[in-house]
Amino acid sequence: MRMYDIIKKKRDGGELSAEEIRFFIEGYTRGEIPDYQAAALCMAIFYRDMTLRETTDLTIAVRDSGERPDFSSIKGIRMDKHSTGGVGDKTSLVVMPIVASLGAKVAKMSGRGLGHTGGTVDKLESIKGFRTELDECEFVDIVNKTGIAIVGQSRELAPADKKLYALRDVTATVDSMPLIASSIMGKKLAADDDCIVLDVKTGSGSFMKTVEDSRKLAQIMVSIGKAVGKKIMALITDMDRPLGFAIGNSLEVIEAVETLRGHGPDDLTEVCVALASNMLCLGGSGTLEECENAVKGAIADGSALAALEAMVEAQGGDPEWIRNTSLFPKAEFSREVCAAENGYIVSVDTEGLGTASLMLGAGRNTKDDKIDHSAGIILIKKTGDRVRRGQTIARLYTNDRGRLDAAEEKLLESTHIGAKAPQSRPLIFAKVE
Amino acid sequence: MRMYDIIKKKRDGGELSAEEIRFFIEGYTRGEIPDYQAAALCMAIFYRDMTLRETTDLTIAVRDSGERPDFSSIKGIRMDKHSTGGVGDKTSLVVMPIVASLGAKVAKMSGRGLGHTGGTVDKLESIKGFRTELDECEFVDIVNKTGIAIVGQSRELAPADKKLYALRDVTATVDSMPLIASSIMGKKLAADDDCIVLDVKTGSGSFMKTVEDSRKLAQIMVSIGKAVGKKIMALITDMDRPLGFAIGNSLEVIEAVETLRGHGPDDLTEVCVALASNMLCLGGSGTLEECENAVKGAIADGSALAALEAMVEAQGGDPEWIRNTSLFPKAEFSREVCAAENGYIVSVDTEGLGTASLMLGAGRNTKDDKIDHSAGIILIKKTGDRVRRGQTIARLYTNDRGRLDAAEEKLLESTHIGAKAPQSRPLIFAKVE
Repeated sequence: MRMYDIIKKKRDGGELSAEEIRFFIEGYTRGEIPDYQAAALCMAIFYRDMTLRETTDLTIAVRDSGERPDFSSIKGIRMDKHSTGGVGDKTSLVVMPIVASLGAKVAKMSGRGLGHTGGTVDKLESIKGFRTELDECEFVDIVNKTGIAIVGQSRELAPADKKLYALRDVTATVDSMPLIASSIMGKKLAADDDCIVLDVKTGSGSFMKTVEDSRKLAQIMVSIGKAVGKKIMALITDMDRPLGFAIGNSLEVIEAVETLRGHGPDDLTEVCVALASNMLCLGGSGTLEECENAVKGAIADGSALAALEAMVEAQGGDPEWIRNTSLFPKAEFSREVCAAENGYIVSVDTEGLGTASLMLGAGRNTKDDKIDHSAGIILIKKTGDRVRRGQTIARLYTNDRGRLDAAEEKLLESTHIGAKAPQSRPLIFAKVE
Repeated sequence: MRMYDIIKKKRDGGELSAEEIRFFIEGYTRGEIPDYQAAALCMAIFYRDMTLRETTDLTIAVRDSGERPDFSSIKGIRMDKHSTGGVGDKTSLVVMPIVASLGAKVAKMSGRGLGHTGGTVDKLESIKGFRTELDECEFVDIVNKTGIAIVGQSRELAPADKKLYALRDVTATVDSMPLIASSIMGKKLAADDDCIVLDVKTGSGSFMKTVEDSRKLAQIMVSIGKAVGKKIMALITDMDRPLGFAIGNSLEVIEAVETLRGHGPDDLTEVCVALASNMLCLGGSGTLEECENAVKGAIADGSALAALEAMVEAQGGDPEWIRNTSLFPKAEFSREVCAAENGYIVSVDTEGLGTASLMLGAGRNTKDDKIDHSAGIILIKKTGDRVRRGQTIARLYTNDRGRLDAAEEKLLESTHIGAKAPQSRPLIFAKVE
């Protein structure tokens, strides 16, 4: 088998066999197939697409490209959610403790943030003492004891994806449905959970800008999951505006805690309840309505918050910070950003808000950048809200005063004020199962 | 300027600016742009094509990517032809001496063969003592003295093309009109001749399999040449069968000499006369009919052959070998290949014949292979000829007896015998100017 023939076959619109796909992924992971051939194939896939069968085989090859953790000693039904990434998306911090408090097992390996979206692991590390690197034994022990643990992705998980994504990122081959789907699902399936709920974001803050594309991606990923025997479904949720008001690591943890207390923003609460209910329903905990009631109950009676506290304590963090979020350090500098005119916020460029937060120090431009955990943005006004000239629309936080001007400019530029209130947009567009 | 943006622009169907194209070619030649980005761009060009303006700019960037020889001290009108490559194509060895004998200046830098097609330089090296590496001074001196010199391409000529071609060859991005045209013309224009005649081959032995594609390629190349102020035209000629009967280095030189003596095969003579006449006509030597008469005269009165002799002598070769071609060493082993059935040769896979010759030692599989100059094939029967079972259709020559069986098999496999005589096919399909 020759890589040249595989490229040519795909270039001319052929369907690659499972053996050809595995030959490519295994050879590329081992460094035997050079980057330039992989780049040519990715560009051919960009134009020629892949059948669901090819995409599934690609996903399986990516999943199998590295070591896979052994979670067989975890008792119970393992659940996970995966978000395609958004700005101010702290749903994992809310959803996973809820389902854990209702008997599911959560052994979550989560990514770090890069660019305008944050990572769950970075957010958790804003809690004093919290360890996101645990060895497999300790990880399994904590899951069995508290029902939930969240760690960083180990280096060995689906290395093909890491290598291939880095290549796609510099060769303009990221925006390809089969490559996106196999990248997400290859990593996700490596963890081998029983039930998976996908949160496919749509809108200006996500990389799927239209509902149609998001639905298509969701359908592909759900089909892949089913093909390998998983219980899986997807919600298409809005990312044309950030979820909640907080963007930035400790700011988002605090908002997640508020939500688990039952006092969170409406939009964040609604999405989290939907994700958690669907996840439990997939796991056989009852009808969707029954699961929804159980989820609301776990918030109301404090058991969901208790699951988060237990996890924080088990992973070395100070649970007192969860009980009293005023313990999180405040950023040294802050600034009120004011509306420049009267009107309504008709839309925001959500990615732009993510970039503003990144500029304040909340994220990484390159993977070696250090994060300022208390930096970020609290939105005061969101899409649809009426604003008066001079009224505060957001508050910026940073420990580096020099970053405020550029971030303010970016935030204002990303916030569009007009004379008429915009049409309201649903928060959850569709369910794909 | 970022290579990423250039790839993305072309990926999405945009037209690259001259600056973007130059940025790519210069950066790639210097090694600043990695192979994987160049591969992604080539694949995007494969799908999205290029406008004539882009292709011209790409050609100019390739032309300018290395040192360019200074031929300003050559007196007279410099002419050249370029063939897109074929099996048994010895036209340069006939055409260039003809036009030199009629007053044109020929300072030809020619390629070596790789794969199933031979190179003019390899053929000339079958003449005892012939040197194909001359420094620029000596080269110019010989051209001024004898009217003609043919040398190997120096390493510095259009290095971007060399690097890019090697990449395209392993990433399935060779078959792209703008990439083919800019590769050929970039090198060709680096020599800065005044008049250029392109011999665009069509059929099973060339890489343009259809007349339509050949015409398209010819039109692009002629347009590029005109855009940079050259006198240029193209003939589309047949390569569905080899030209003449000889395939292999010294065998082809001998056939070229016979043709210059006026005793060559009809097809080879016809194509050579057409190429030479059109070249002289481009250079202002008269009407096409006048030029054709002059060409035939130069063959008839021996002046064309004398030009070849003079060049061979000036470049260190033994001119006696041209006067008496029985001096070329014979291969140690030969074999008659016989028809397996009665009928007509309805078609040949010309590329297959080239491969058979390569198997006998006449060519290179990799660029470091050594050539057996006396190896090759003499075809006895060609497409359209009637054959009887057991009748000799070709003779194989080699100095390595072990190569005969496989080459015979390849030749038979490439020769298709049927019951009915095939329709005759023109030798020259079209003129593009």
